[in-house]
Formats: sequence, C-alpha cells, structure tokens
Amino acid sequence: MTELVLTSPLDMHLHVRQDAMLDVVAPLSAQHFAGAVIMPNLVPAVDTVERLHWYTGEVRRATAGHAFDPFMTLFFRDYTREELVAAKPHIIGIKLYPAGATTNSDNGVQEIMSMAHVFAMMEELEIPLLVHGETHGFVMDREEEFCEVYRALATRFPRLRITMEHITTRAAVQLLDEFPNLRATVTPHHLIITLDDVAGGLLNPHLFCKPIAKRPEDRDALLQAALAAHPKLMMGSDSAPHPVSKKECPGCAAGVFTAPIILPMLAELFERHNVLHNLQAFVSDRAQQLYGVTPPRTTVRLVREEMTIPERYGDVVPMWAGRTLPWRVASVTA
Amino acid sequence: MTELVLTSPLDMHLHVRQDAMLDVVAPLSAQHFAGAVIMPNLVPAVDTVERLHWYTGEVRRATAGHAFDPFMTLFFRDYTREELVAAKPHIIGIKLYPAGATTNSDNGVQEIMSMAHVFAMMEELEIPLLVHGETHGFVMDREEEFCEVYRALATRFPRLRITMEHITTRAAVQLLDEFPNLRATVTPHHLIITLDDVAGGLLNPHLFCKPIAKRPEDRDALLQAALAAHPKLMMGSDSAPHPVSKKECPGCAAGVFTAPIILPMLAELFERHNVLHNLQAFVSDRAQQLYGVTPPRTTVRLVREEMTIPERYGDVVPMWAGRTLPWRVASVTA
Repeated sequence: MTELVLTSPLDMHLHVRQDAMLDVVAPLSAQHFAGAVIMPNLVPAVDTVERLHWYTGEVRRATAGHAFDPFMTLFFRDYTREELVAAKPHIIGIKLYPAGATTNSDNGVQEIMSMAHVFAMMEELEIPLLVHGETHGFVMDREEEFCEVYRALATRFPRLRITMEHITTRAAVQLLDEFPNLRATVTPHHLIITLDDVAGGLLNPHLFCKPIAKRPEDRDALLQAALAAHPKLMMGSDSAPHPVSKKECPGCAAGVFTAPIILPMLAELFERHNVLHNLQAFVSDRAQQLYGVTPPRTTVRLVREEMTIPERYGDVVPMWAGRTLPWRVASVTA
Repeated sequence: MTELVLTSPLDMHLHVRQDAMLDVVAPLSAQHFAGAVIMPNLVPAVDTVERLHWYTGEVRRATAGHAFDPFMTLFFRDYTREELVAAKPHIIGIKLYPAGATTNSDNGVQEIMSMAHVFAMMEELEIPLLVHGETHGFVMDREEEFCEVYRALATRFPRLRITMEHITTRAAVQLLDEFPNLRATVTPHHLIITLDDVAGGLLNPHLFCKPIAKRPEDRDALLQAALAAHPKLMMGSDSAPHPVSKKECPGCAAGVFTAPIILPMLAELFERHNVLHNLQAFVSDRAQQLYGVTPPRTTVRLVREEMTIPERYGDVVPMWAGRTLPWRVASVTA
C-alpha cells in the first residue's frame, strides 16, 4: 500500500490549552482532524456555560480556516438541572476528574456516588459522562482500582453513556464487554509504549503521561482491541502539550504531545499488523457511531513517504522528536 | 534523643566516578564514612589489576586527609586464576553486571552459568561476588525475575559469598533467609520511596535510579528488614552522581545522589520508627561481620539540629535538594 485515504478523522480526547499555546497546538490538530473532543481542564476550569462559550470561541478562533468541529466539554461539578439544560446544546459531554477518589476504590465509589443526583440528571438529559478513571492509589494500580467505580456507575446508571478516557490496562479493555453503556478512548502512544519506554532505560520525560504507560500485557490488550476496531473503542490522543521547560526539569508535567503525528503513527502501526483497513473505524467511524456526531466531511490522504518528526513545535517537544515515520499526510480536502 | 554517635559507618555500595566528578563526590563520602565499596563501572571498566591500582590511587588521592578505606572491586569478566590471585589482596569482591542476561530468567541462568568456572575459582579463593541482579525484562519485574539466577548461583556455589546489591523487592528480602551464602545491600532511598515518588505525581528525575523504586509492599519489606538490623543486610547507598545536564534532559541517567545526606536521612528514619539503636548495625556492624573488614575507627556524632539539603554539590543535584532534615552530622573524629 502506498496511499491511504481517511475520511473525517476525529480525536476524541484532546488538550489544546489556551492563549499562546492554544495558537500553536490547535491548528496542528485542526489541520488533520475534522473534529476533536476538547478537554476543559484549564485554570480555572471550564465549568460554567459562560466560560464554555468563551473557550469555544477561543478554539474556533485558533482553528479558523480548517474544517474542524470542536466538541466541547464541561468540567464536572455539582451542576444544577438548569445549568445542564443550558449547556447541553453546546457540549458533547462532561468530563469528570475524580479529585475526591481516594486510594481505596470503595471510598472512590462512595465519593463518586455523592454526585449521584448529577449523574441521574445527565442520564435523563442524555449527556455523556467522560471519566479520567484513576484512584489515588499506587501509580501502576490506579486505573485497575478505578474499575470498581466504573462498574458501580455503569450499573446504577444503565442509560448514562460513560466514556472511560485514555484507558491503559487490560482490565479496562475487559470492562468494555461487560457493560453496554461503557465505551472508551485509547491514545496512540498507549498502543505502543509500556513503562519500559518511559523508565526502562534512560528516563524519558516526553513519554511521561497520566495514566502512566503500564505493563506489556496491558499494552497488548489495548493494541489488539484497537487493531480489531473494537466497536466501543475510539482514538483519543490525549495529546497534551507542555513547554519543554516543564518537561525537562526536576518536576516534569504529565503529557505526551502527539497531535501532528497521530495519523502517520497509526498508519504505520495498523499497516505493520496488516489491518490498515480498520484504521478508518478506529479514528472516526466508532466515534461517530458512539456519540452520534456528524463532523465536517474531510478527505485526508496519507502517502507512504518518510516524515521526520520535528524536534519542536513552538517550545513543545513531540513524541519521538527526530524519528522518521514511513507515512506522512499529503493532503487534506474539505 | 538529641545526640547520636555512630562508629565507623560504612557505605557498602558507592559510585565515586573519576576525574573532576571524583574530586567533588569522593570527599563527601569520606567525610562521614570510614570506608566504602567502590564500584568499578567506569568507562572503560576497572577490569585489570593495573587499572585497579590506578583507580585505587585516584580514590585515595581524592579522599586524602580522611580516615577512609576504599574497598575496591573489579568489574566481572572471564578472569584467569592468575588474575584473580593477583587481584585478591586488593579487592573486597568482584561486581557482576549481567549484560548477557536476557528477558527470560532461564536464559539469564544459562548465560550466567557460562561463567561457572570463574565463580568456582572465586569460591575457592574466597572472593565475594557482588551482583547487580536484574534481568532485561519489564522494568518492574527485573529483580524478581533475577531471583532465579540468585537461587541457581547460591545453590551451585554454596561457599561463594554473594551480595545481592541494592535490593528493591520483597522477593529479594525473602531470599536472604533462604540461602546462607546470600547477603544484600539496600539503599536509604529504597527504604523510603516507591515508584509513586518517581512518577506518581510530577516525574522526578532526581529519584530515578536502577533498579527503579518498586511497589509500597516492596518498600515496606525492605524497610522492616533494615529497621530490624537484619543480620544479612548492609547499608549500601548506591549514591550515583550525574551532572544536572544528564538528569534534567530528554534521556535522564539513572542514579540518586545521597552521599552527603545518608546519615541524617537514616537517623530521621530510624528515629521515626523508634529503632535508632539499630542504626549502628545497619550502617557498619553488619558489613564488618559479613565481609570481615576492619575499617578505621571513627566516631561520627549527629545532633538533632536542622540541616537544609543544598540545591547542588558542584553540578550534582542531591536527593531532596532544598528539604530540611532534623539531624545533621556535627563532628567526625578518627
């Protein structure tokens, strides 16, 4: 295969930040993707309809000229019904960061269930819940421990559509088949790396992210599900830019920046496993089916020509800076 | 307790490097310790008697004026009997880095056993074997996988004294009680930190080391053994300086620099657990018993006065830079 055409690729988990960083990174997603789920974890968070409108405007401004739909999210809190009703037309879902979840997953469930009234309203109003699923336990166990919370939520709110964001474990993959209302995003990098790539040789801050990359058997389970275009699994890059000064330092921030290289990375990965025909589903169709969204129709043509990944985009170091990929994006037409 | 006196503390696993770095770090160990096991992993390695004599001279020069015995080691290779006989009076043991050990621990055993003739000579000549016990497997499993190699060595060479260097797992602690000829060193930092401290919040390159810090249950097993002054466990700091440019960068070198803060750190730790009376055994007596060495007699007086850890020693960032410890070394007399 020397050419690959994708239609309306979508990134179902993306951080585009704000201000100068927004202007650097948002176009790098909008140039390849027809839409992306925009995370609300700014400081302060996007947790009012007013702030949502402001941020939507910012993202639209930064991606002007591209056929690109920002699918906005609110930051989860104890919203009133009026707030949810007002927000609903403007969001794809509400993102929950379980700040209150403690080491113990039972406590996690209790903490989460103190918000049951909000989940019930979201279920009724058909607003999806997007979840960063980690307890505050030992770093390698956090997601698996959180699976109890997913089970409790999925059971108690059977019509609430729940996205397990950026899953990293075999345990989370298995949950997909247990509960009809659970779906998930997975990042390209979690299909490829394990903790060995972060800390098995030299320590690589540019591969450090949360949830942290796990064990080989976890990576393999994620990869198999993605390659098979699992019907409940969507590509969400969690591309998360930080300036190099926040990465190569004594307290390195979590986040891997992949936005501009996602499609070439995935083309290489799916080709290597002889399932290039499943890439369209993984990077677009599944998301459209699961969320019922209709993004702008774009045609992205990749060609089998080498692309050397730049050392920097602005002051952000991308994953695999300096490496060469066998595919590149040749054209995007709307 | 407001004062603590230690006699002839020993650091049974230390990297002092060479050239300018040697001059910075060796005195920081020699000022507090009466002796230290000096690792041979220079480039090129210390693997000839000639190079051993050169390096011994270098370390003595850098620590001149201190009552300090460098216990030298050779880098393991396929030595002849003549080489071993010539080296023996000048070394405390031979350090094995299992470069040939592969992911699979069975292969590891096979690889190691290709050197059985050297181990047999070391056993006969009563030269201890010091081992960096990690396979090339998944980073969190490497030491536990290597336990098979320790078992094989300890069984086949029952009179060979084998030190499991810088152990980091509960599995390795358990081995101490299984085989009479196995003993171990453990670092102060592995008594305190887990992978959570390295990568559970922000990523901290200055706590990144090999073997990597493990799970809480591993740390707890190491800590209990150290606090109890386990008869086969010695303090070996594995203090391993790197210039800051090799730590805060895209490919961070493994190593935690603790040399100047070891005794205050341990005083705080043992005091907190109400076993300050066991610290003398952990930092000196056990090593003297297990290796039969007699270091210079020094008296190190610690006082319960705050010490703020410097941000740098030369261009090396120590563990816990900027933090305050409740104990400091007040005087050392020989």
